[in-house]
Amino acid sequence: MEVVQVLHMNGGTGDMSYANNSLVQQKVISMTKPITEEAITNLYCTSFPTTLSIADLGCSSGPNTFYVVSELIKEVHNISKKLGRKSPEYQVFLNDLPGNDFNTIFRSLSSFHEKLEKHVGPCFFTGVPGSFYGRIFPTKSLHFVHASYSLQWLSQVPEGLEGNKGNIYMATNSPQNVLRAYYDQFQKDFSMFLECRSVELVAGGRMVLTLLGRRSEDPSSKECCYIWELLAMALNDMVTEGIIEEEKFNSFNIPQYTPSAGEVKYEVEKQGCFTIDRLEVSEVNWDAYADEYNLDEGFKDGGYNVAKCMRAVAEPLLVSQFGEEIIDEVFSRYKEIITDRMSKEKTEFVNVIVSVTRNA
Amino acid sequence: MEVVQVLHMNGGTGDMSYANNSLVQQKVISMTKPITEEAITNLYCTSFPTTLSIADLGCSSGPNTFYVVSELIKEVHNISKKLGRKSPEYQVFLNDLPGNDFNTIFRSLSSFHEKLEKHVGPCFFTGVPGSFYGRIFPTKSLHFVHASYSLQWLSQVPEGLEGNKGNIYMATNSPQNVLRAYYDQFQKDFSMFLECRSVELVAGGRMVLTLLGRRSEDPSSKECCYIWELLAMALNDMVTEGIIEEEKFNSFNIPQYTPSAGEVKYEVEKQGCFTIDRLEVSEVNWDAYADEYNLDEGFKDGGYNVAKCMRAVAEPLLVSQFGEEIIDEVFSRYKEIITDRMSKEKTEFVNVIVSVTRNA
Repeated sequence: MEVVQVLHMNGGTGDMSYANNSLVQQKVISMTKPITEEAITNLYCTSFPTTLSIADLGCSSGPNTFYVVSELIKEVHNISKKLGRKSPEYQVFLNDLPGNDFNTIFRSLSSFHEKLEKHVGPCFFTGVPGSFYGRIFPTKSLHFVHASYSLQWLSQVPEGLEGNKGNIYMATNSPQNVLRAYYDQFQKDFSMFLECRSVELVAGGRMVLTLLGRRSEDPSSKECCYIWELLAMALNDMVTEGIIEEEKFNSFNIPQYTPSAGEVKYEVEKQGCFTIDRLEVSEVNWDAYADEYNLDEGFKDGGYNVAKCMRAVAEPLLVSQFGEEIIDEVFSRYKEIITDRMSKEKTEFVNVIVSVTRNA
Repeated sequence: MEVVQVLHMNGGTGDMSYANNSLVQQKVISMTKPITEEAITNLYCTSFPTTLSIADLGCSSGPNTFYVVSELIKEVHNISKKLGRKSPEYQVFLNDLPGNDFNTIFRSLSSFHEKLEKHVGPCFFTGVPGSFYGRIFPTKSLHFVHASYSLQWLSQVPEGLEGNKGNIYMATNSPQNVLRAYYDQFQKDFSMFLECRSVELVAGGRMVLTLLGRRSEDPSSKECCYIWELLAMALNDMVTEGIIEEEKFNSFNIPQYTPSAGEVKYEVEKQGCFTIDRLEVSEVNWDAYADEYNLDEGFKDGGYNVAKCMRAVAEPLLVSQFGEEIIDEVFSRYKEIITDRMSKEKTEFVNVIVSVTRNA
């Protein structure tokens, strides 16, 4: 599986699209807002660029794509107004892998764009296809980089995952070599990410990165692996029933690593070009609707919500390995399993947020 | 009809796609190559930017999208090598209206991109959705602008086209008010285009623009209007046969203006920010395959080639007005008519090419 070719959130605006199933990700962006606002405020007030370049890496396609960037822009606009300065022009780079549905972004951009420009002045939106584990911007061309729930995705499935039978990710019963292989890949990828951004950001430029991660120092900790273990259960059952080939199941692994805050800190310090301004950990419920009142009947089924969210994220990976035909069945079973577990225990994603400044 | 929403070349890579039916446009780009090369050479050698920003406006989706830009980049790379300088980084902006198929561009980019970077060093590609009759780039952010066969498209169907019965474009029997309305819209649009680019280009920046145009000073001259008159004939026949509603036909007009070199020159001089380095007119056969030998049987049918090319360009406009159902029939009739005329007379498109420098 070529992750760069295969990995993307479900496109379009249909029932199973990422656009309609990314409320958890939006909540995380909201939770992180004080940190991103602090970072962009400090950036703006130390340099006052006439054109402010903002990149959102792993922008996906849907409301979140515009939400992050428009909040950042409004913040800068408000500060510039308070200070009696002319609002800068905004150059926005929306990045994701080439399989991302950029057409849907671009076609929904104009009404959003018009409203935003009325409020803050000239904004220029561009789409940047490519992996952020390589160079995607010119030298010293960016002021601000944002990435939320994208950097836990690895550039490839780690090599050397032998002996992880029955699992599709790290799990409590994974052997040491598997945990090591996942961590090695994370280190390689994340350090490459930092290296590339250190070239592309201006001195004093900022980054706020939010990763799906964990609190525990144990990489096979339940808090980060459970969601995939439950998917493995659904797939395992289908192998037993002969619906999925065992061989295909055994060679399927999720190209993800959910780091601890310590692991993130270690890589940033090792790379050496960035100063850490903030490093925080927080939690968000698997079911984004869990704390909401007055819900329509359709949204009260937490298992259904979570399964749909995971489907919007993981469907292309599963299709690439197992084909289209089994997808409905997989997620129907996954939903049952998730519903059962959510009724019995507290289920949360862990977020690791780091805010850094590019050293001069 | 909202031109900004509707106008786009046929997407994808299928039989009727623009990607597979744009050989005429490619020929025009090749013919213009000496002019674009001269312009980018002069630009590079007078400023030696470390990052060179190139925009292709109306890039469409297909081989031409990459062809123009890669030729420009290779040229600069060769000059920098000859001069013993480090090749600059290249920032490429591919612009078209939001309905353009950016997904297809982005998904075919990576193999092309890799080969190019091996040859010339870092290139960064971005997609820019939006109308070039408005601002789409930050102030002084571009070094080079290229547009081929895109600026003859107007931002809207001109207002005041009463009395143009039986026609879908200017024609020999069009009344004066219709010719005037088309020209007014062209002036409004082209002057706005120049205004926006004058802000976005750096001092000394260059533009090479190739428009579908005409040699004659008469805007209803056959050389530029005939191709649409033949389409109107096909549509007229279908109205007579009751396949197309007369009302719909009467309210359908092509949002295009094919200017003379003099009209282009007039607008550039009126705007005042650019110096004209070159202004040329050339011709290209309607049938891009006409001068080629050893053709596969399928490409020997000139009428078929031209009808397919026009279909790739105009299908979305026709669908928006008349619906999907009649399209095959329209182009089948159009093909018959074109084949007949091509056997009896010389049929050529006229290109107006202008190369300009942004004054300091």
